[in-house]
Amino acid sequence: MKRNVLIIGAGGVAQVVAHKCAQNNDVLGDLHIASRTVSKCEAIIESVHAKGAMKQDGVFKAHAVDGMDSDAVEALINDLGVQIVINVGSPFVNMTVLEACIRTGVAYIDTAIHEDPTKICETPPWYGNYEWKRREDCAKANTTAILGAGFDPGMVNAFARFAVDEFMDDVKSIDIVDINAGNHGKYFSTNFDPEINFREFTGTVYSWQDGAWQENKMFEVGREWDLPVVGKQKAYMSGHDEVHSLAANYPEADVRFWMGFGDHYINVFTVLQNLGLLSEQPVVTAEGLEVVPLKVVKAVLPDPSTLAPNYTGKTCIGDLVKGTKDGKDVEVFVYNVADHKDAYNEVGSQGISYTAGVPPVAMAMLIADGTYDTGTMVNVEELDPKPLFALLDTIGLPTRVKLADQDTGWDEAIA
Amino acid sequence: MKRNVLIIGAGGVAQVVAHKCAQNNDVLGDLHIASRTVSKCEAIIESVHAKGAMKQDGVFKAHAVDGMDSDAVEALINDLGVQIVINVGSPFVNMTVLEACIRTGVAYIDTAIHEDPTKICETPPWYGNYEWKRREDCAKANTTAILGAGFDPGMVNAFARFAVDEFMDDVKSIDIVDINAGNHGKYFSTNFDPEINFREFTGTVYSWQDGAWQENKMFEVGREWDLPVVGKQKAYMSGHDEVHSLAANYPEADVRFWMGFGDHYINVFTVLQNLGLLSEQPVVTAEGLEVVPLKVVKAVLPDPSTLAPNYTGKTCIGDLVKGTKDGKDVEVFVYNVADHKDAYNEVGSQGISYTAGVPPVAMAMLIADGTYDTGTMVNVEELDPKPLFALLDTIGLPTRVKLADQDTGWDEAIA
Repeated sequence: MKRNVLIIGAGGVAQVVAHKCAQNNDVLGDLHIASRTVSKCEAIIESVHAKGAMKQDGVFKAHAVDGMDSDAVEALINDLGVQIVINVGSPFVNMTVLEACIRTGVAYIDTAIHEDPTKICETPPWYGNYEWKRREDCAKANTTAILGAGFDPGMVNAFARFAVDEFMDDVKSIDIVDINAGNHGKYFSTNFDPEINFREFTGTVYSWQDGAWQENKMFEVGREWDLPVVGKQKAYMSGHDEVHSLAANYPEADVRFWMGFGDHYINVFTVLQNLGLLSEQPVVTAEGLEVVPLKVVKAVLPDPSTLAPNYTGKTCIGDLVKGTKDGKDVEVFVYNVADHKDAYNEVGSQGISYTAGVPPVAMAMLIADGTYDTGTMVNVEELDPKPLFALLDTIGLPTRVKLADQDTGWDEAIA
Repeated sequence: MKRNVLIIGAGGVAQVVAHKCAQNNDVLGDLHIASRTVSKCEAIIESVHAKGAMKQDGVFKAHAVDGMDSDAVEALINDLGVQIVINVGSPFVNMTVLEACIRTGVAYIDTAIHEDPTKICETPPWYGNYEWKRREDCAKANTTAILGAGFDPGMVNAFARFAVDEFMDDVKSIDIVDINAGNHGKYFSTNFDPEINFREFTGTVYSWQDGAWQENKMFEVGREWDLPVVGKQKAYMSGHDEVHSLAANYPEADVRFWMGFGDHYINVFTVLQNLGLLSEQPVVTAEGLEVVPLKVVKAVLPDPSTLAPNYTGKTCIGDLVKGTKDGKDVEVFVYNVADHKDAYNEVGSQGISYTAGVPPVAMAMLIADGTYDTGTMVNVEELDPKPLFALLDTIGLPTRVKLADQDTGWDEAIA
């Protein structure tokens, strides 16, 4: 039984995590949120109280901390007496926050792979470059670390495990498809921090096919998908965290990630990239000012957190998993549909942040009750998915299964 | 008889001016070139000598001067004993350089309208905001000032005057069409300094129609033109300097400027503009760095001076002038075709710089021999165009005339 949670980060996903933790503080205990800018943490706590989101009276406090400073994070963990850290800060702070959790033996949850700010798209498997190097240290310290525990990565890893466990003897392919059929009403915007968002698409697209890493360029491989609720949508093979752990855990399957993009997004992205405006390497202006183009693009784009009030439409994210059962081909689509407006009404965020922020809170609750308190480092597909699905059915992200002509809740599909 | 020339500026057009002055130093006398960065001036003089461009032995020296500093320009004029200043520096320095010419009584030539760096697209007529306010001062000082003496503005003003004088009793419309059918082989590049180039297209498009200033947006009004050599080309009504003087000198005519743009250029421009990346107003990055987006776009785009070696294809710039003669409708197209590769071979610059840089040298030669030494401020259409055409026929930019089914040299057309 672990209790008391420290949230690291104060962006759009942290906002969702804060609201969901508050809604479940009977299970989670004291709540704390920390980032470099304490005023952002305070604003999130205010929004929690404005919604009356605290399930019962309890602690929710804001703190200033630099996530790059392991000593400072360690001291904060000790001072506050927290036993679970949900890291939804910048992906640049993963390893320093994890270090603090290993030193203190508390549980660690994150939602995206560690990144070095000076590098884009390192060699696969990405988890092998940083996180998995600390696996033995986690085990020694009895530190539970659940990596990539948002939606994608996160829920889609659990979807893959569920599909293989329940419906197949052998798995042949796992295709993760992420479609945002929402409309934010702006000329152009990213749904996350543009700096992080664009970094996903400027490097090599790694997929795991025929038992080896394959390399493509972004927007080189596209396919039209016909998905529940959102209908026919074009998606492109993209690099994404979960491919790198699923390929290790299901090496016999082809593992690909597909991200939906409209023609307009691709056009804007292509122009910016071809001009060099998405570069993380500084350029020097005629006036001698050294500046990183991507940071200027970020400065002119809408702040993604401002999109929520006018965001309409739905997301559909799921796994099409193919394999064989009793010698016959079988195909199952495990998925969730979320609504931007519903997310805003509930927690003040758009649907993309909502889908990313609710699962790590579910993980924290399952660590709190012992179910997921593994005492070591895991990716989500290494955990039994059913307790997670059961919990998420009740807190906002129900899992559905499309199998042959049937489209039902996950529990009905295996009943 | 005026002699000895000071060139202000050291960009792509200055390179052409320097070479053409050198090729005609028997008429022009001592040559000097000055800009803030003296090394750029020295590189231009080196390229002149490398081509063996000096017609006869003579002076060609580089100097450092800040064109924004009238006192410094005045001192330089006096020190060097020059009587003609060709200002092809940034359009921000026009008024300070003109001031120095008025004080010293030497001749002044420029190729683009004065601009205030903090303002885009001021109220029409543009010349009325700055240049024409100094007309009386020029007359008092006996300073010859030829404004807008490049190709467009410049030659196209002379084309209009010629068409009206030679072929019409009454003029109804003057449509200036600028088509660059060249290919620089880059994903995207501007042909001039991007900062100046984009500024032309981010403001209101002013045209003179029905005896009044009309306002449109960029790319709002497009038309396909079928021109000599370059064929069918799409061009869009754009704001341009020469409209503002021609409207004053031919108020009875509609005066419009059309710039050719491919779909790719328009797409890139539209994306950059809609994102706010063409703004001259600073933004602040997440790291607190204040930066002007347009200057960053300039920093990532190719330096226009690097395009020349691989630039192929031709430009066609001309005036379609309509009016009546002896009660009948008449229509004439006066134009020039220039070749990028020929320009590079001759002076080391691409065709756009070549067409802009050769005419001011012709003006200087006509001031030197007294033909254009007016002792006051003029726009090019206020000068007799024939001596200019005759001279340009011999130094690289022949004028042609398309009239009914005939397409001939300008002199043959009026023979």
